[in-house]
Amino acid sequence: MAPIKRIGPSRLSPTRSRSVIHDGIVTTVATSNTKVLSLYDQARDALAAIDRNLQEAGTDKSRILMVMIYITDITMKPEFSRAWDEWVDRANLPLRACVSASLEHDHLVELVVTAAMDP
Amino acid sequence: MAPIKRIGPSRLSPTRSRSVIHDGIVTTVATSNTKVLSLYDQARDALAAIDRNLQEAGTDKSRILMVMIYITDITMKPEFSRAWDEWVDRANLPLRACVSASLEHDHLVELVVTAAMDP
Amino acid sequence: MAPIKRIGPSRLSPTRSRSVIHDGIVTTVATSNTKVLSLYDQARDALAAIDRNLQEAGTDKSRILMVMIYITDITMKPEFSRAWDEWVDRANLPLRACVSASLEHDHLVELVVTAAMDP
Repeated sequence: MAPIKRIGPSRLSPTRSRSVIHDGIVTTVATSNTKVLSLYDQARDALAAIDRNLQEAGTDKSRILMVMIYITDITMKPEFSRAWDEWVDRANLPLRACVSASLEHDHLVELVVTAAMDP
Repeated sequence: MAPIKRIGPSRLSPTRSRSVIHDGIVTTVATSNTKVLSLYDQARDALAAIDRNLQEAGTDKSRILMVMIYITDITMKPEFSRAWDEWVDRANLPLRACVSASLEHDHLVELVVTAAMDP
Repeated sequence: MAPIKRIGPSRLSPTRSRSVIHDGIVTTVATSNTKVLSLYDQARDALAAIDRNLQEAGTDKSRILMVMIYITDITMKPEFSRAWDEWVDRANLPLRACVSASLEHDHLVELVVTAAMDP
């Protein structure tokens, strides 16, 4: 049985983890800390939060497997992709999917990321 | 090659599984069995279905890694979170993400859960 | 540390992978190549793309664990399910969940699939 390492709790709530590590994979979630921003700026902020969460877990974006992207307005997807293209590790391209869904408060983007752990 | 154990079929359809176990992780899906209910009541019912599916697979909520939550009305998220807070194992907090999406029929919530298997 | 094998880039964009393989699991994403179609026809086309991606990765639909289905119109879910029922390997039923979300351009369906690798 592989042990489970739970990091957190989340800054948003005391009843959920910020990241969970199990059997060589970390899963983590992020939104933008600052909500009064454009989607591009929220995307940059959320991707930076992913970087921090991965570092905290002991890995980094070069080891990302999949990024599931929820944005509130699908017509703004090019703005998310602009932030993505500036951020992504081009030597280690993640898989991604992006759909539109409503999010709480003034969030314009939410990310769910899985990454392999570093050795 | 790790074997795949498929539990089911789903009570909703003969062409999908209810749970799938592979390499120490079970993935399962649940909605509320009873649809003429508030989101809070449907959430309680769906979380109880998750408990049953995990038990059937041979694990329990203390081993949950991630819960992906789809609710039809994002403004009702606090009602989901109320059911969550009553249900969650506070010694073993899962990761979660919650977005709004349309669901079939009168479902107000659908859950996709991954959990580590017990030894 | 399990190595990561990245296949791609995606035909849609040079900054993401088409499939990612890690620790015996491949994750892949597909939409329909042809957008001027009904949901049923797009679903057939997207499921065929999944078949191709799995073959390229070295596995096939008999080893699928989970299919996450995003369709733009939840009332059309029976049309997706019709294509699913014709396509699915009934001896190896995947887990699936289907929600409605907006998608870019004229896509009516997007699929995110995890599958175990063949030996």
